[in-house]
Amino acid sequence: MKRIGNQTLELEKECYIIGRGSICGEKEKNGTYKNYMKKSVSDDKMGQKTFEKGERQMLSLINETAIKNAGLKRKDIDLYLGGDLMNQLVSSNYVAEAMQVPFVGIYSACSTITASIGIAGCLFDAGGFKNILCSTISHFSAAERQYRYPLEFGNQRQCYSQWTVTAGGGFVLSQKKSSVKVSKICFGRVQDFGVVDIANMGAAMAPAACDTLCNFFADTKTKPNDYDFIATGDLGKLGSDILRDLIEERGFVLGQNYIDIGHSIYSFEEESYQGGSGAGCSASVLATYIMDKLESKEFKKVLVVATGALMSTTSNQQGDSIPSVAHLIELVAE
Amino acid sequence: MKRIGNQTLELEKECYIIGRGSICGEKEKNGTYKNYMKKSVSDDKMGQKTFEKGERQMLSLINETAIKNAGLKRKDIDLYLGGDLMNQLVSSNYVAEAMQVPFVGIYSACSTITASIGIAGCLFDAGGFKNILCSTISHFSAAERQYRYPLEFGNQRQCYSQWTVTAGGGFVLSQKKSSVKVSKICFGRVQDFGVVDIANMGAAMAPAACDTLCNFFADTKTKPNDYDFIATGDLGKLGSDILRDLIEERGFVLGQNYIDIGHSIYSFEEESYQGGSGAGCSASVLATYIMDKLESKEFKKVLVVATGALMSTTSNQQGDSIPSVAHLIELVAE
Repeated sequence: MKRIGNQTLELEKECYIIGRGSICGEKEKNGTYKNYMKKSVSDDKMGQKTFEKGERQMLSLINETAIKNAGLKRKDIDLYLGGDLMNQLVSSNYVAEAMQVPFVGIYSACSTITASIGIAGCLFDAGGFKNILCSTISHFSAAERQYRYPLEFGNQRQCYSQWTVTAGGGFVLSQKKSSVKVSKICFGRVQDFGVVDIANMGAAMAPAACDTLCNFFADTKTKPNDYDFIATGDLGKLGSDILRDLIEERGFVLGQNYIDIGHSIYSFEEESYQGGSGAGCSASVLATYIMDKLESKEFKKVLVVATGALMSTTSNQQGDSIPSVAHLIELVAE
Repeated sequence: MKRIGNQTLELEKECYIIGRGSICGEKEKNGTYKNYMKKSVSDDKMGQKTFEKGERQMLSLINETAIKNAGLKRKDIDLYLGGDLMNQLVSSNYVAEAMQVPFVGIYSACSTITASIGIAGCLFDAGGFKNILCSTISHFSAAERQYRYPLEFGNQRQCYSQWTVTAGGGFVLSQKKSSVKVSKICFGRVQDFGVVDIANMGAAMAPAACDTLCNFFADTKTKPNDYDFIATGDLGKLGSDILRDLIEERGFVLGQNYIDIGHSIYSFEEESYQGGSGAGCSASVLATYIMDKLESKEFKKVLVVATGALMSTTSNQQGDSIPSVAHLIELVAE
């Protein structure tokens, strides 16, 4: 692996995405990416007693789909990296228990998928790994009652709030060649511009996306137009507007090739205010729309910059502002 | 990096521990390792308003100490890997924000330090990294109110319970030579033998320690006696007794060279029932006692197998059993 500039890592050995799986709820299925999100569920408890247990079932299905899509069996997976939004990453822990492959939990809130793929990319450069599974998920109802209010409370939503997606995505990375390669990685630095409103995550996360993107552009001596497609994780409409402003101050312009996944995931009619959020937001769209476009070579060079708001309810109740991070991966169609 | 057997990784490039830092509370300072734990605090709020904010201050000090001990500055750190027991790893997130170095959060409960050092070890084999900081912490009062009851409630403790240590440890890993090398890594598989009692973590974690140790011994064709010192993380007295039984069924005997850090960290007079637990338990003893013994070459080959109980309060309240994991690192004195 080669370090470029301060923060960017260029992979020297092969790291390909050879399998992928995704699953989403009804709201996501009816959104912008409906033609790409093929696997959806109508019962978000998946026949279980609680949302949390339903989330696990969904994550388990995602992992199975990704492994099957790669033409592999569970025993072919050398390592499983990932996490979710639940406290102590319980959804992933229970799924890892059932899988019986070595597992390391990554917590990076909604940027979990790029953090995990980033680490996995580095591990291939280290050698000793054939196939690594990376996955994450989020669940609206489970997240809502953990981070904010139980649904039964029927709280009003702020106009600047986002909607945690019920969806997830999983990827099998391998040294075996496929048509989509992980080529560069940029792990982010935690940023905190003082936003304390737990509903306003887009504003909290925009500085992190800006920092990682600007450092990556500086390191690689590139600019936004050098990429076919740039996607931030889940800043939402407001957050991505803030990012456009912040990054302009740093001398870069995000043009037509830029979208925010959170902003775009729901259709306007779905009334999701600023859009979607959650660890599964960027993971599910990466596992469907973005991968489809890379495999068809419509996109040849893509940056995915998932962003994560790293607060807890305790830190929020103690008046702390929301620290955020953004991890970037560069994907190339071959 | 070379894979040995199914689960073990042997580092081929250099990965040395060049700096370390530790801090503990008064109870830990008065325990078994009092001659090794040199830095302690009497105010576990560190002059802050809450235990959680105090924990952050302690972690910040640990990281600074480790970096200074390595003869480095903050800007020399390429990556910070770590986590803590707080929901969403907030202690580490806030410290990472203040440090402004790339940060990836690892959640593996009380096995966080070996998971982080394990990943860091692999990253050195990948290349592109000069210095990586790994650290973790736990705080009795902050953990107690998050996982069990607020202290003011004054609940009775079960005879099989453990005491979350107020302590932490940080390590700077580097390609630069020092006297202690990370030589092998074995990431664990999540185990769950059906223990549902949140106070009985030793029993829940023992199968994970057994699985990782047995797989490592099988992979490397070694046995417990081939090591000067084997330390499990924080199984406590009961958990480590269970481990001895379980591992005997698999054909290995843990002898005089084996200790459990949780079991040994407090003195008998401190009335901590089965002993200590918490992410800082193995991290602080590794950063003090074990590193001292490795540097003085009293120990030449050491296995540290930190164990983590991966439940959440939600999963516990929903009747789920406690999944656990154990990650192993082999350290060698040079």
